[in-house]
Parts: sequence; structure tokens; C-alpha cells
Amino acid sequence: MNICTYSYEEYLHLVKSFHGNLAPGLIIGGFIVDLAMKNLPEGELFDAVCETPVCLPDAVQILTPCTIGNGWLSIVNFGRFAVTLYEKYSGKGVRVYLDTEKLNDWPEVRDWYLKKKKKNEQDPEVLLAQIKKAGHKLLSIQKVHVDFEKVRRRKMGPVGICPVCGEAYPLKDGASCRNCQGETPYIEISKIKTAK
Amino acid sequence: MNICTYSYEEYLHLVKSFHGNLAPGLIIGGFIVDLAMKNLPEGELFDAVCETPVCLPDAVQILTPCTIGNGWLSIVNFGRFAVTLYEKYSGKGVRVYLDTEKLNDWPEVRDWYLKKKKKNEQDPEVLLAQIKKAGHKLLSIQKVHVDFEKVRRRKMGPVGICPVCGEAYPLKDGASCRNCQGETPYIEISKIKTAK
Repeated sequence: MNICTYSYEEYLHLVKSFHGNLAPGLIIGGFIVDLAMKNLPEGELFDAVCETPVCLPDAVQILTPCTIGNGWLSIVNFGRFAVTLYEKYSGKGVRVYLDTEKLNDWPEVRDWYLKKKKKNEQDPEVLLAQIKKAGHKLLSIQKVHVDFEKVRRRKMGPVGICPVCGEAYPLKDGASCRNCQGETPYIEISKIKTAK
Repeated sequence: MNICTYSYEEYLHLVKSFHGNLAPGLIIGGFIVDLAMKNLPEGELFDAVCETPVCLPDAVQILTPCTIGNGWLSIVNFGRFAVTLYEKYSGKGVRVYLDTEKLNDWPEVRDWYLKKKKKNEQDPEVLLAQIKKAGHKLLSIQKVHVDFEKVRRRKMGPVGICPVCGEAYPLKDGASCRNCQGETPYIEISKIKTAK
């Protein structure tokens, strides 16, 4: 049993090292990406869409060339457990998702996924064993055509210096940067040191 | 010269392997994360904020335990080249940014960063050499207090089955999932296969 080019155990090791813990969603995510990779349409360059920010993006980042920072992975916040890989120019691709109709054969996975059990009522060993045994059997796959303008990040465009903070920012955001327009998440900010 | 626990060359290798290419922003990002790590306040658990989705999140994901999938890395789309690391519970932390006032000593970096030269006018070798030589000298650092409610991802809450697509989704999104409410990025979708 492999997850893309890795053995199952190698993949678990990568998950621990990158993500910090053996999150059940990320193990299922490995099978999702694996099944999508095995069903790619023809083409050379693939981008990814992940339909939740929870766990799943890390499976894509571990197993494919697509990352948040290089822009080949987009996240849409639908809260659905699905990954789409699509050919960059045509938008044609495959979508693999956790199929709720297939959950009844795997009760511990079902109760975890649908939040029917609280965390302290779950049995992590049984859960991981069922995930491993189920593999692709929890999943279904669809052929999709992606309207990639809706998911890809916008070009930054021309850059200017924000008159408030003095930092560079995309001029399309307005007369000052979005932080200085009031979106700042910082309650206090003070210069402490300048690297020389 | 090190980038966190890696030599400069090891870091370049990780960048190539994870991100796909030696993006200048990601090399600077390595120095940004390195300087932030060296100036962390006391505490054990740190979360990260990245103020642009471009390149920089991958430096955080390569060099710290914070990833998009585990939720310890948040991205705000200010288009500023800055990373904040903050103590998870107090919100106290440090923000490191590319300081536009320091760019004049490094003209190739300045022209790339402020988009004063088109891509085909840039000299990638000179650019990378200046970035390596400058290191922390391009950066400044601030003490910040993060209002983390503004940046952390929301809890998913109770889960239901979408009456349209049949997939699980967060009930807080409404009577059906956001995809089926009209946000779908898929032009066409058809079931092609069921894993058995």
C-alpha cells in the first residue's frame, strides 16, 4: 500500500515531521491526493484546489509540487473534505472527496468525521486502523472543469510605499496598505531593533 | 551563515524541493523567519502570521512547525513582506519585515522588490548574491501584540450533510454548503468512478 511515491509508513513519518501530529484528516488526505494523482487527465502542469483549510492542504503540500507560497495550491473555505487537481491551462481535472455514503462501513471514521463523538470518546487507534484499512474505499471521484479565475490568487500589480507604515504594498489596495486602512491584527507595535 | 538550524545551502535545497524554484522572496523569507526565531519572547508555543500569500508562507512552513493545514500559520492578504511569530496564549511576539529604507544599499533587490525592473531586465545571479550578502541587513524588527482572534481560523462547529451535494459541511454556513450556495469554482462536474 503506497501513498503516491511513499510507503504508508514513510507518509506517516512525513506527516509527523511537517504537520506535527498524525491528524486523521491528513492520513485520509494522503489517500485523497493519491487517488487524484492516479486519475489525472493528460497534461503536464497541475494546480490544486483544497476545499477546506483544515489538515488537507498539508497532504497536498507534502505529496505534490503545489504549495500555498508558490500559488499552485488554492484553498476555498467550503468545509468540504475534497481535493481537486486540474491541468493548469485547460482547467480540466479530477476531484476526490470523502463520500458520506461510504462512511457506514467504517463507524469510527464516521463518528469522528461527522463529529458524533467528542474527542475524549474517540479511540485514536481504532480510528487510524480503520482509515488505513479503508484507504480509497472512503472516497469517490469526479471529473471536473475548474473556472480557475475563481480560485487562483490575483496578480499583485504595481507596488508603492504606504504613506502610513512606510512599507511596500500593492497600489490596487488603495491610498494606504490594508493594515493601515484598519485591518491590522496588531494591538501594539513598537520598533525594538534594527539589523545593521 | 545559517538559516535557523540549516546552513544557507541546505536551506536553498529545501526551498527547491518544497517550493519548486529558488524564488528570491523565499530566500529573503528564510532570513526573515531566522531573525524572528532569534528574537522570540519567552514562551513555548508559537503561532505565525504571514502578511502575504506570495512565497513567504513557504519559508514559515519549511522552517517552523506552523503550517496552513495545522492552523498555526495564518495568512493575511496585506501584500506586505512580513512575518510575525507570537506566543499562542498571550499574543506577544515579534514582527520582522523587509524595510524599504534599507533597500538602497542593495539596488538589484530594490528594483526587484519595488518592481522597477521587468523580469527580463533582472539579473537573477546578482539578485541572489545581493540577497545572500545582505541577509538580515534588509530587515527590521518590531515588538507586537497580536489580536489573534482576528487571524486564527474559526472552529468548524457542528457538521451536517448538504441536501444538494450530499457531502458533509459546517452547518454554520447555512442550509446548504457554500459550494452549492453558488460559490462553486466548477463549471462541470460528473462522477467518473467509485472506489470500491
